[in-house]
Formats: sequence, C-alpha cells, structure tokens
Amino acid sequence: MTAQYVSSGEFTRDQRYIATRITADGRDGYPVEPGRYRLIVSRACPWASRAVVVRRLLGLEHVLSMGIAGPTHDSRSWTFDLDPGHRDPVLGIERLQEAYFARYPDYERGITVPAMVDTRTGQVVTNDYAQITLDLSTEWREYHRPGAPDLYPEELRAEIDDVNRVVFADVNNGVYRSGFAGSQEAYEKAYRRLFTRLDWLSDRLESQRYLVGDTITEADVRLFTTLVRFDPVYHGHFKCNRQKLTEMPVLWAYARDLFQTPGFGDTVDFDHIKRHYYVVHRDINPTGIVPAGPDLSGWLTPHGREALGGRPFGNGSPPGPPSPEETVPATA
Amino acid sequence: MTAQYVSSGEFTRDQRYIATRITADGRDGYPVEPGRYRLIVSRACPWASRAVVVRRLLGLEHVLSMGIAGPTHDSRSWTFDLDPGHRDPVLGIERLQEAYFARYPDYERGITVPAMVDTRTGQVVTNDYAQITLDLSTEWREYHRPGAPDLYPEELRAEIDDVNRVVFADVNNGVYRSGFAGSQEAYEKAYRRLFTRLDWLSDRLESQRYLVGDTITEADVRLFTTLVRFDPVYHGHFKCNRQKLTEMPVLWAYARDLFQTPGFGDTVDFDHIKRHYYVVHRDINPTGIVPAGPDLSGWLTPHGREALGGRPFGNGSPPGPPSPEETVPATA
Repeated sequence: MTAQYVSSGEFTRDQRYIATRITADGRDGYPVEPGRYRLIVSRACPWASRAVVVRRLLGLEHVLSMGIAGPTHDSRSWTFDLDPGHRDPVLGIERLQEAYFARYPDYERGITVPAMVDTRTGQVVTNDYAQITLDLSTEWREYHRPGAPDLYPEELRAEIDDVNRVVFADVNNGVYRSGFAGSQEAYEKAYRRLFTRLDWLSDRLESQRYLVGDTITEADVRLFTTLVRFDPVYHGHFKCNRQKLTEMPVLWAYARDLFQTPGFGDTVDFDHIKRHYYVVHRDINPTGIVPAGPDLSGWLTPHGREALGGRPFGNGSPPGPPSPEETVPATA
Repeated sequence: MTAQYVSSGEFTRDQRYIATRITADGRDGYPVEPGRYRLIVSRACPWASRAVVVRRLLGLEHVLSMGIAGPTHDSRSWTFDLDPGHRDPVLGIERLQEAYFARYPDYERGITVPAMVDTRTGQVVTNDYAQITLDLSTEWREYHRPGAPDLYPEELRAEIDDVNRVVFADVNNGVYRSGFAGSQEAYEKAYRRLFTRLDWLSDRLESQRYLVGDTITEADVRLFTTLVRFDPVYHGHFKCNRQKLTEMPVLWAYARDLFQTPGFGDTVDFDHIKRHYYVVHRDINPTGIVPAGPDLSGWLTPHGREALGGRPFGNGSPPGPPSPEETVPATA
C-alpha cells in the first residue's frame, strides 16, 4: 500500500496500478493460459484476499498457482519469508519487488499484493487488484471448475459496480482513511462516513441475504475481506470503534454467513492479519505489540441467514476443501 | 503516574507516595478540619476518580473542596487549564507541581492525582490514593452527610482488603501493565492475568449484587473506576481486547448498576477520560488522535441487578445531585 497525505491530513491511496490485463484474447500480450501465471498474495492483505477468495470460489487453483508472502513485510517489499530458504519456490525470488523490477527496473510505486506474475519471465503483469478479480471471473471462465458461481453476472454488473464504488470509498478504503488520518478532523470525517455506510449496508442486508441479487457476487467478496478484519484490526488499530462488528447484528450475521461458506472463511488467517497491521504500522503502533484478542470463537456460531432465502452458489455448488498446502493453519 | 520498566519489559508502577495522613486526631500534623483541605483531581484518572466518587457518596463536598485539573497534562504536571486564568481559584497555582514543590522543593517523583492540599500553606499533604479514600470513610466520619453509606465497615474490612489487593494487581493496575508492556511476552502475561481475574469477578458477581456484603463498599468504587474506562480506553488503547465490557454480561450489568447509582456515573467525564489517555500517551498513540467511539448510550439501559437484592446504601440513602459547578457537562 502506498499512501499520500494532503494538507487537511486526509489519507489518500495511490491508485495508480500496473494496468496490463491477462485476458482470454491476450490483447495486452498476456493471454489466459493454464500454469503460466502465479498469483502472489498475502493473507494479511484485504485487497489480496479478494483474489484468494475468488480463485477458490471459481476453482482456479489447478491453473493459477499461488505464492504467499509473509505477513510482516519491511518498508521495501513483501517477502517470501514463509517459504523454505525464504524464496518463492516457483519464482525463486526472496522479495516481491524483484518481480516488479524485472518488469520495470525503475519502478517507484508501492510493491503491492495481489500481483500476477508471469512465470516465464518472472515479471509482474499486473497489480491492479480491482481488475484482477473481475478478470478471474470473466476472462478465465474457460478454466472455472464445474459448478463455479458467476460472481459478476452480466445483468447485475451495473448494480454490483455501484455497490462496489461506495463500499470501496467508505468502507474498504474508509477504514484506512480513519486509521491513517493525519488530523483529528480528517479522522472524524472518515469515521462518520464509514459508520454511515455500514448503517446503510446493514439496512440493505436486513432483508436480503447478499448485497446484489440472491447469490454471492464480487460485491460480497469485497465487503467480506474488510468485515473479517474489523474486530481484530480496524476497531482498535484504526480507531473504527463506534461498535465492533459483533455489535452490529445484521452485518455480523452476514459476515458469519459468508465466513462459513466454503471459499471465504477457509482463506482467512487471523494470525497473519493481526501481525501484519500491528507489526508493520509502527507509525501508529510504535511498540509493535500484537493484541491477544479479540475472542474469535463467534465466527462459527449459527447466523440464521438461511431464513432470508438466497442460493449462495446459484445453480452451482460450493468448492471442495482447500489443498493441504493452501490450508490455513488453525490458530489457538 | 510514574512508571518504571524492568528488563522483561514489564510495566512497574512507582508506588512510593507521600504517606502523610489527614486524621481525626491529627497525629501527622494534619487534623481533619472543615474547609482546610482541597482535593485535587482529574476526572480522567481512575485513581483520582475513586476519591471523587467517595467524596460524593459520603457528602463531604461542604467540608472538602475540589479542584479539577484538565485532562491533558504535559510531561511535568497536571495543570489547571480548565479554570479562569488557568489557575486553581483556591490555591492560585497553574500547575499541581507547585503544591508538591511547596512541600518538597526537590520532589522528584510523579506529580499525581488525587492530591490533598492544605489550603493554609499551599502544600500537598498526601497523594497516597489508596489511603485517601479509606481516610475519607473512617477519619472524616464526623462530617459525613446524614444517610452516608459505610464504605469500609469494620466487620468486612479483611474481605474488602483481600478483594482490593487482587483487583489492584490484576485489574486496576493490570490494564496499565497490558498497555505499557515493553514486550509481547509481558503484554500477554498481563492480558491473561487481567481476563482471568475479570472472569473470576464475573463469577463472583453473578449471584451477588456487590463485591463484598450486600451494600456498596470501597471495593466496588475501586473496580468501578476501571470498568467505566474499559471500552473507551483500555480495550483499544491498552490492547485489553478479549472482549469489550459490553460483551461480558455480568460485569457490564454490574458496572451499569453502579453507574446509575447517584455518586458514581454523575462523576464520570468520558470526554476527559478519552482525551487524557489518547493525547497524553504519545508513546503508544503517536498521532494523538482521539477515537470518536465507542457508542456509550448503553450505560443508561436497565441492568436488572435489583433482582439480586442488596441495598446500595444499606440503612442510608443516596446523595443528592452534584452542585452545578461540579456537574459533568453532557457529552454529545
């Protein structure tokens, strides 16, 4: 993540990403091809976690491998410190920045995840997280598993895009605007905007099971990766503390429903999430001490959302369990 | 508050206070006398707030005046920045340290509240917070209001002392040991000890309305001033985040019961509390930004604890409302 501040103390996300796309027709020079690309993620990062969830839901594991960076990158780069020899076993690199520099030797912007890397050249193709997940849904369709859901159905795209826009501005990025505010005023503005939007989402989700239509879509994936981090990180670390998620009944039930849906909760590593934010952001947590809480046992409790109807996978079916090497270790 | 660290990273409170006592018989040179002493407090500070509560419960306002320091002292001293001209109207000083230096020109320990100051000399008599409240109960008895409760009854002293000892070590001071821990290990040790003790207190209070006996005592006052700060400050700022107080049903009901008892909640200034901790502790909150949450509206909701019996004031009665000049301004 790369940040800028404007004079009012507002946090502004640098949204210039490498916009090359991997497409079915290969018009940017990178055609969809089984086994060619590697998705580099961190399980700590909400933007990367969207891609992790979507890849699982669509069953793309067999055609798109995944490398997992450690949660506590330094100021220069995410690193492969979880891997044997501290190198990604496929790319052979220690730091994700090597893949960025392989493509652009003078690359100056943030070394971010998710990143799609071409294994033939070791070069990053794109880190444009918003486009990556949409392309997994639309451009990689040929390789989706049987029964994969349509996360971005044609007839709902306008509505999904509308929801995504406000959820990004007020929630996904809103928590960062709250936590990284450089002034009391900027913080309070972000806080109010965040909770106003969460109230709006709560109203919307009170009588419908998913954000758009009656199945899970890209919109749910994008809200989920923020909600799942809310109590462990954003509530305290980013001062988003009007309530905990567990104190917002509709959103808490909605988040649990998704968490318990195959492809969502089985991608979540609370240990990585907590360590990343609290260890890396020394500017707001100088001690680097990681909170022992919150108690997370509630995530597996009944949510009662089935009563609202909805068919999580539409006419499809849930994905099977993750492979052993991609299974998140149980946290105490 | 004055802190020391030992090599394990544990926070250790400097517990050497000025031990002079104001007593009925005046054996330390300071006899109890109406109008002679001034209690200096901050409404932010849990240790000072004990004395604020006890003074109200016992109705000592007419014999013991109170000066209120602002919530955001600097590194040297609590200051009277809330008063006209930024001076305490009775003592005529800008900074509480002046009263300490008046007694001990070379005073090197922390300038703490509560402090009892002799208005004749402008000298601090004592800042020994644990003794101050007990002496208000026992040595000032002649001046208690009619119907004042006995907060430290003879027959229950041993039990009150026992409870106070573990509540101090694990809870009152435990939250500081969590928040000011200098290592992950020291933090986790404090966290475990804190929540183990809160579970113990919850068990104890499940079937009895107050901590000791069937009326409010000094033990309840001491636990209250920590619990009331739990969600606004300790949960996030000090990383005491297994649960919020609002998620621990017995303790939350117990705390609300006390909050709604005259003499408790009417002394609490959440604005001072939040600003103090988040603005003063730049070492753990470098931005100085004060969280806008939590939602505090729950404090006035029904608690249902009357069903457990108990008589808050024993054979006595509650105090009347605070005087206009000592009324806490309503927070938004």
